Order: sequence, then C-alpha cells, then structure tokens
Amino acid sequence: MVAEHEKLASDVDSRQAFATSVHAVLAEFFETQQATVGSVGPVFADAVEVLKSFVLNGGKRVRPSFTWAGWLGAGGSPDSDRATAVLTVAAAQEFIQASALIHDDVMDESSTRRGAPSVHVQFANRHRRGKWEGDSRKYGEAIAILLGDLGLCWADDMLRSAYLRMDEHKRVAPVWSAMRTEVIGGQVLDIATVAERDESEAAALRIDRYKTAAYTVERPLHLGAELAGAGPDLIRAYRQFGVDIGIAFQLRDDLLGVFGDPAVTGKPIGDDLREGKRTVLLALALQRANPKESALLRRCIGTAMSDNDLARVYEVLRTTGVVEDLERRIERLTDRAIVALETSEATPTAQRLLRGMALSATRREA
Amino acid sequence: MVAEHEKLASDVDSRQAFATSVHAVLAEFFETQQATVGSVGPVFADAVEVLKSFVLNGGKRVRPSFTWAGWLGAGGSPDSDRATAVLTVAAAQEFIQASALIHDDVMDESSTRRGAPSVHVQFANRHRRGKWEGDSRKYGEAIAILLGDLGLCWADDMLRSAYLRMDEHKRVAPVWSAMRTEVIGGQVLDIATVAERDESEAAALRIDRYKTAAYTVERPLHLGAELAGAGPDLIRAYRQFGVDIGIAFQLRDDLLGVFGDPAVTGKPIGDDLREGKRTVLLALALQRANPKESALLRRCIGTAMSDNDLARVYEVLRTTGVVEDLERRIERLTDRAIVALETSEATPTAQRLLRGMALSATRREA
Repeated sequence: MVAEHEKLASDVDSRQAFATSVHAVLAEFFETQQATVGSVGPVFADAVEVLKSFVLNGGKRVRPSFTWAGWLGAGGSPDSDRATAVLTVAAAQEFIQASALIHDDVMDESSTRRGAPSVHVQFANRHRRGKWEGDSRKYGEAIAILLGDLGLCWADDMLRSAYLRMDEHKRVAPVWSAMRTEVIGGQVLDIATVAERDESEAAALRIDRYKTAAYTVERPLHLGAELAGAGPDLIRAYRQFGVDIGIAFQLRDDLLGVFGDPAVTGKPIGDDLREGKRTVLLALALQRANPKESALLRRCIGTAMSDNDLARVYEVLRTTGVVEDLERRIERLTDRAIVALETSEATPTAQRLLRGMALSATRREA
Repeated sequence: MVAEHEKLASDVDSRQAFATSVHAVLAEFFETQQATVGSVGPVFADAVEVLKSFVLNGGKRVRPSFTWAGWLGAGGSPDSDRATAVLTVAAAQEFIQASALIHDDVMDESSTRRGAPSVHVQFANRHRRGKWEGDSRKYGEAIAILLGDLGLCWADDMLRSAYLRMDEHKRVAPVWSAMRTEVIGGQVLDIATVAERDESEAAALRIDRYKTAAYTVERPLHLGAELAGAGPDLIRAYRQFGVDIGIAFQLRDDLLGVFGDPAVTGKPIGDDLREGKRTVLLALALQRANPKESALLRRCIGTAMSDNDLARVYEVLRTTGVVEDLERRIERLTDRAIVALETSEATPTAQRLLRGMALSATRREA
C-alpha cells in the first residue's frame, strides 16, 4: 500500500492511499493503548473513544503528507525498511493537531468543529443530559483539556513507537521539539496580540510564521528531510518553501475568512471580522484607511456588528485595495517557494508532488 | 555533587543536594529552549518566564527522588557515566507535574498554588491591570492552558535530551507512556466521579491508584528500575511498594484535608469537605452512617456549608469511626510496602532511603 505513493505521486488515488495508510497506523497506535486505558477504567475508556473518533475521522492529513513528501524528495524510498518508521512519525503529528484543535476550541469557546459539536461541547451535553453534579460547561472544558493533554502525550508516545535509530533520533528530535514549541508560542502570540490590541502587520505576520507556516509546512517537511538524512542545502530549500507556502496558505485563509463563499467554506459570512482575528489583511487595511474608515474598522471588528456595519467594513476593505495586495503577496510567496523547490536537489517526483500541494494550499476556495 | 547522594542517603543534606541537582538540570534545560522561544518573540518569552519560575521554584521533587532512589536501589551508581542521563529523566517528570498543576488549577478554578496566585490568575491579573481587550478570566485560562501544554511537550523534550541508549530507551518508553496516560486517566475519573455522584469506595480507590499512587510513587520508581536494567523480581517489589505507599500517602492526604491543622497544612479548615472531593474517607463514612447522618453528609458535602453544618459533619465522621479505620489502613499499607521492600534485592542503602521516604509520606502532618 505504502509503495504506491511514489508511483502515483500527485494524483487523487495516491492521496487517498496515503490517507488510508495514516489512518491505519493511527488506528494501530490506539490499539496499543487499549490495555493501559482499560486498566484505568471504563469511564476513561469512554472518553478516549471521543479522542479516537476525532483523530481517526478528522482532517486532511496535511502535516503527515508534507513529512512524507519531504522524505521522498530527499531520497526516501517507500520500499525501504524505514518506510513504516517514517509513516509513524508523520502520522504522530495528527495527535498534536488534534490536541491543538481541542484546546483551541476550549479557549475560543467554539461550539462546532468539522461540522459536529466540539469536544468540550460533546462532554457538556453528556453532563447536561445526565443531569450530573456541577456546571456542565466546566465539566465539558475539563474533560476536553484532559483529552487534549492526552493527545499531546500520545504524539510523543507514537513518535517513540517508531523506534528510530540513534542517528535518526538525533536529527529528528530538535525539529520535533521546535515544531511543538513554535505552534504553542504562535498561539500565545495570537491570544496576546488580540488582547493587547496590537494592530501591526509585523505581529500578524509573526503569528502566521509560527502558528501556521512553521507548524503546518516548514517543520513537517523538515522532519521528512531529517528522517532521510538530507544535506543542509535541501533542508534550506525545504524550509524556505515551507515558510513561504505556509504564510501564503494563511493569507489565503484570511481572504477566505472574509470574502469566501459561505456555501463553500462552511463559515458564516464575515465570521473572521466579527471574531476580531488579527490578520495581515486587517493590519494592512488599518494602515491604508483614512481616519474615518479606520475608526469604523476599530469600532466594528471583533464585535457582533450589524449587517449594515458589516457591509460598510467590506466597502473599506475593497476601497483600500488590500485584497489585490494580498493576492499579489500570495503569488509572490508561491513563486518564490516553487523556485526554491525547483532549484533544490529534491527528486523530480517529489517536486511535482510538493508543487501540487503548494498550489492547492494557496489557490483553494475553502 | 551527584556522587554525594549514595553516601549521604537519607539525611537532610543529601535531600538538599539532590534538589539542587534537579534544579540545575531543569535550569539547564530551560537554557536550551531560549533560542527557539526567543525566535517566536518576547511576548512568548515573557510567558515562558512564568513557567520557568513555576518549575524551578516549586515542589518537593518527589517523583525525581523516587526515580533516583529506584535507580540506586537497582544498582545504579552516581559515579557511573549514566548518572546524568538518569538525573535528566528523573527531573523531566517535574514538567509533567507543573503541567498537571497548572491545568488542574484551571479546571478547579483554584486561585492560589503554593501560596501564590495560580498561573491562570497571574495572567488574568496582567490582563486586568493592562485594561486589555476581552475577558480577563478567559485570557488567563487560555495562557495557562498553553503553558501547561508547553510543560507536557518539554517533559518529553527533556526526556529525549537524555539521549538514552536504545536498550534503555526500549525499557523506559512503555513506563513513561503508562505514567502519563494513567495520571490523565485518573484525573478524568476524578472529575467524572464527582459529576456522576459515584460515592463508592471502589471509585475513590481507583482514583487514588491512578491519579496518585501510579503517578507519584509506582511509576517513578519503576522508571528508575528500568534505567538500571533491574530484573522482574525487583520491579515487582518496587511496584508493590509504590502502589501501597502511594495509596497510603493519598489516604493521609484525605485525613489532613479534613482534620489537618490549618496552621500546618495552609488550607482552610474543612476545605476538602466544602470542595466535595470524592475520597475513600467520605465513601466509608457514607457506608457506615445511619440514614439521618448520610442525608446530612449528602446535603452538605460539596457545598459552602455553614460552620454549624461543618461541625455536624465532623461529628458524623468521628462517630462512624472512619478515622481510626483509615489510620489502620495506612499502617497496613505501609507495613506491606516495607516488607516488599525489605525482602527485595534493592541495595541496603536504597532500602533505608525508600523506607524514610515512605514514612515521611504517610506520617506527615502537612
């Protein structure tokens, strides 16, 4: 199954086959935890089932894909005896992602995730239905915090279960560590930037750099490269590609969060504006708006503004020209990333694969 | 410095020297994180400082001590070239503990920890003082959740930084994994047991087993044994000792939480009763109380009861004889633990050390 990826490279079947492989190693990891979980007791086992469906059913496996592509591109072979270890390390990132989403939803008080009630809401609902003791919301948040903690622990347990050789381990460990510290740091910045009303473009870019680019593209690719024992030139090229595509991905996300078609994105219109997300888009708009316009933005952004105000905010975003500017930036970043990739030593198949991933990350509509 | 522990064994100087060594390796670990933390930015670095003081200034280093003692007892030598690796693994548990306390305080809405404002309160206070955007409480909780997450990640990063040999790694990994899953599982049980109003002794004992005994004594000792390559007999003896002393420790804690001298424990009188902790003490009292008494307990426990009601609750606890029963259980568990220890292959010095630790854990007054 694993062996097909290199051949089929960027087509849909291959992506499906890879997702199936990731699902399989994740499911297998859950099996290995059964005994310990069961010994703690059925109440815990029930809670773990929620984490299990979250991890097994969720997401596009973006980070595992970049690690796998990075490994292939640095000469890793799906037929080698290292393929299973690489797949395991790649898939382990899904536990970090699950934990990040579960904790994010608690922090943001988001009630839905992937079209279903978020984890803390699921447990709050159980509490409410059972007419249990205490506050349902607090109960849901507590269990969600603990399941997110478990996800973080299991990411590392799964990494360890790959039993990397000492040389692989020494190369991988610093990258794995940096990735986790960076994404948590980026999230701290995000929360602090909103709280401290930092409207600067620099602050927004820094969040994009650590919360998104490093965590979603740069480090996953870097992990793949280290697993393959890549040299410094390829690693540099991958990281450049990763930072650029990661930021371009986030800028696209910002545009979709404001101008995306609700029917395609699944988010209500103006969601990011009402939430008050500190995006590069907003920072640029505030830089360019005239005093009256920026007063309007400051009064409305981050509030449950009326549809009338929302329409006026859209008008300001359009007249300041930030949309065209962001589109140009996305294009420049993507171009630079692809040049870094195409002038690198990455194998041709992996170049094709990564180019396809770059374009679908930056040109998507949802 | 490390070499002194074996010689000085159980006296106060040695404990102080060990605490100093643990502090040193923890401080050194923080140094290694500076570069990554700094690159994310000063706002993140500021937040990490709070985690740093929490970890460096806190606690009695109980878990590292048991790991160290377990390793010594299984033939580990402070003069060997493995001593630093063992100290690193031992100390890494302090990050798990920091994370557990920080997240516990969020879940329980506890405003103080170790006589200072808890981490989420510290950040809520900053938010309030800065007159920042949004809700101060939510801000404090979000940063505390993230710092707890960082603590969990850094526990594993620090473990990795020990660069265990493959044989050590293979023995240690399952124990480290089980410990973290067990403590999170125990915490889930604790929260669910209160919510579902499970008053059984079995539920309370199960929480003590996983949330306290496994995490505080059994697994830390087990880690030390595996690091030394101990055989199955010694591991079995350590685990028996660990479970028994861990539960006895918790039963002592339950007694102190209800009958402890507030001047010595630092907790207000009747704190555990008003909080509604599901302890073995309470489970036994409910089993033995007559219908009128158990109605009183059910009406009052877990509420901000009046001092008058509190006095009546105390009266019930005294007349049911649960205090004497718990004292007997603590004694029986401690005796059994010490027999397991003394009939084991553990070195005489380590036996003396562990006996001392067992007695101070189960006979303490605070």
